[in-house]
Amino acid sequence: MEKARLEAHWEAQEARWLEEWKAFLSIPSISADQAHLADCVRCAEWLASHLRALGLEAELRDTATKPVVFARYNCPDPDAPTVLYYGHYDVQPPDPLEAWESPPFSPTYRNGRMFARGAQDNKGQTFYVLKALETLLQQGALRYNVRLLIEGEEETSSRAFANALPAWEADLKADVLMVCDTSSLSLETPTVTMGLRGSLFAGIRLDGPGYDVHSGSFGGLIRNPAVEMAHLLSTLHDAQGRIAVKGFLDDVAEPSEEDKAMAHKAPYAWADISDRLGVALDGGESGIPPAYRVGFRPTIEVNGLLSGYNGPGVKTIIPAYATAKITSRLAAGQDPERALRCLIAHLHQHAPPSLRFHIEAQGIGGPALQLSVHEPWIQHAARILAPLAKREVAFAWEGGSIPIVGQLARLSGATPILVGFGLEEDRIHSPNESFSLEQMRMGFLYVANFLSSPRG
Amino acid sequence: MEKARLEAHWEAQEARWLEEWKAFLSIPSISADQAHLADCVRCAEWLASHLRALGLEAELRDTATKPVVFARYNCPDPDAPTVLYYGHYDVQPPDPLEAWESPPFSPTYRNGRMFARGAQDNKGQTFYVLKALETLLQQGALRYNVRLLIEGEEETSSRAFANALPAWEADLKADVLMVCDTSSLSLETPTVTMGLRGSLFAGIRLDGPGYDVHSGSFGGLIRNPAVEMAHLLSTLHDAQGRIAVKGFLDDVAEPSEEDKAMAHKAPYAWADISDRLGVALDGGESGIPPAYRVGFRPTIEVNGLLSGYNGPGVKTIIPAYATAKITSRLAAGQDPERALRCLIAHLHQHAPPSLRFHIEAQGIGGPALQLSVHEPWIQHAARILAPLAKREVAFAWEGGSIPIVGQLARLSGATPILVGFGLEEDRIHSPNESFSLEQMRMGFLYVANFLSSPRG
Repeated sequence: MEKARLEAHWEAQEARWLEEWKAFLSIPSISADQAHLADCVRCAEWLASHLRALGLEAELRDTATKPVVFARYNCPDPDAPTVLYYGHYDVQPPDPLEAWESPPFSPTYRNGRMFARGAQDNKGQTFYVLKALETLLQQGALRYNVRLLIEGEEETSSRAFANALPAWEADLKADVLMVCDTSSLSLETPTVTMGLRGSLFAGIRLDGPGYDVHSGSFGGLIRNPAVEMAHLLSTLHDAQGRIAVKGFLDDVAEPSEEDKAMAHKAPYAWADISDRLGVALDGGESGIPPAYRVGFRPTIEVNGLLSGYNGPGVKTIIPAYATAKITSRLAAGQDPERALRCLIAHLHQHAPPSLRFHIEAQGIGGPALQLSVHEPWIQHAARILAPLAKREVAFAWEGGSIPIVGQLARLSGATPILVGFGLEEDRIHSPNESFSLEQMRMGFLYVANFLSSPRG
Repeated sequence: MEKARLEAHWEAQEARWLEEWKAFLSIPSISADQAHLADCVRCAEWLASHLRALGLEAELRDTATKPVVFARYNCPDPDAPTVLYYGHYDVQPPDPLEAWESPPFSPTYRNGRMFARGAQDNKGQTFYVLKALETLLQQGALRYNVRLLIEGEEETSSRAFANALPAWEADLKADVLMVCDTSSLSLETPTVTMGLRGSLFAGIRLDGPGYDVHSGSFGGLIRNPAVEMAHLLSTLHDAQGRIAVKGFLDDVAEPSEEDKAMAHKAPYAWADISDRLGVALDGGESGIPPAYRVGFRPTIEVNGLLSGYNGPGVKTIIPAYATAKITSRLAAGQDPERALRCLIAHLHQHAPPSLRFHIEAQGIGGPALQLSVHEPWIQHAARILAPLAKREVAFAWEGGSIPIVGQLARLSGATPILVGFGLEEDRIHSPNESFSLEQMRMGFLYVANFLSSPRG
């Protein structure tokens, strides 16, 4: 469809769409917290009902945990290619709540941005896909068969979803796997994401005395789990910030010279990012440029750390235990199972032998994904994006993960196209997550243009 | 007074005393939490009123923070020696609340033990002093002038109390400084404590990005405050558990051969302690016997550690900040101001230069205290204890601190006598703190015997 007609349609619908978007965002579909299971189900039902209203067949499919929304539209044209859209309706926990300027599940539109948990990741970016489909169906301009899979546990590893997928293989055959869960380098440079990192996680616990004990009576007598946890975590990286887990880096692939050159050329706004976060970009391995560290190197991060007394004043105890939450981002080439084995073995080896050490949780997100700029569908996406770009369309590697994309690509036979309009200022996973109407509009134009102009 | 008469008096009063003890324990006089300031004042008022009912002059004296209970009794005998009793009515915070079997400020008597925060430390041990005074005053058997100083911020460093003391110097002159805030090695071996460790504290914070950020987008790009905090804390000790802070150990005094031999001989119940805590006694510096590690060596402990997300499931963030609470126990010889300077300098030196590092709080408890077994009042206390001992009276070094004892000894000119009936099973500073009626009775007999038989 022409850009002018799409823009006119957007203008006419904007007020109604904002209200629908708010309804979607107001459901606290937090997958990490079992207390919100019913909210996840409610969110899936909202989506299925919304999709049926647009004219698609839609149903919920059960997994061992959260339901998946599956929807389908068959184009009258027997030669139409098939697009499989993958997104997720679950969101990250909103903690710390006190840091939000408006409540995370009371979506608030101010200064051109919608503030809510999930405003961008991934409800916001899924919403413009729905609105593009609505528009094309109303106008008779949809040139693709459409399959949608919108799952409910992307933020907690997609495990049950991954287990359920093989049974649905026949429904998933497609030409292109569209994912809109990524970022662009800026509003002026819409971006095709050429790679995602894989991920894994481990929750660990060190138990000392059976209860918090007096640090005078027992200090020097017994080991302190907080001190020992610090020692244990300090073994994960060397003094140069390089991962020091034996074997972990062995299968990291060296990127091609072409990919390195493209990453080097991509207009990342490093100075802006550093300003906005208020910290230097001196994390990770020293001596490696930032685009390579994020795009081509793995990480091991501590996401949470807890031991003893953290209230007001002084409490002179040796804590009973210490816990830590660890996640890793994996680079291309790394086998996630092997990487997890290396990490677990390292932790066991370096834990103090006289304290009880437990792996409380562990799991795999998925392997890294690496695409080629020579792939025709990638070139097609770039052509669709070109009229939206104030500057050049960028090709970049994202540090994040969408665990399931690799498996979905294999099962569907489709080429993944990762184009999203997220920006760092959206603060996904952080308090005050937001997404601007301008980003939403760009996403709408991209998807509507893509699905009304088959490759050729 | 004869032991038989004292025991008969105890029996006759026991039921009433239990109720009074409960009333004392039910006041949540938590000094670390400003929200409990009014409770601290109420507790001091309860004590003053109780002491007046016993026949002492009693008043509250203001400090910059919590009031001090000061009480006085002058013996008719002009040659009577003067005892200055020092205790504290404040208690440690009760967290974690969910670990208590009965609420910390609803004193519950079961199986011969009183369960409550403060049941032992120091309300319980102060209570038997009050009941010994009550008994001797009723029987006309008190052979000492008595001064009592019961303060309200021992658990948070006694700073304001210490600042107020010099102005009261004239009221404090005494021969013996009685403190009942220590432990015995067992019920069978009442114990004279020959040393206490000093203490200091520091609260630290490392700030990274202005808010929790996505660990995929920014992992490898910026430093992780939780990881950096682990690295920082891991520099405090070397691989042998020895303090690695430059200069910190320089002024630690080597104990005399006589003291080492006495500590070696004291019947510490190491195996029982290890069993009860459920951990090996392999903390502190390797290669040094446990009695020396606790009695003669300093520690640096982490009492609390907090960063990022510690709720259910996985949250893939780089935390905005990490905090830690640190306390140290100081050995004889160490200047606390110097030790604190060494620690702070070390932390600044090892903090990652590109993150903001703050000392959020810092302070001194006091220096260590070291007594001599040749001191006549020490010998006198041992003679008073001998009839109560099923085995030998022990002389031992305690790992804990009573910050103010050194200063009080200097101002009063008195010899400190540290005899207490605490046991490890009392779980002071921990959930389910308790004190048995049997321990209470031993304390009562010790104080009543002491104060009815002047040295000679």
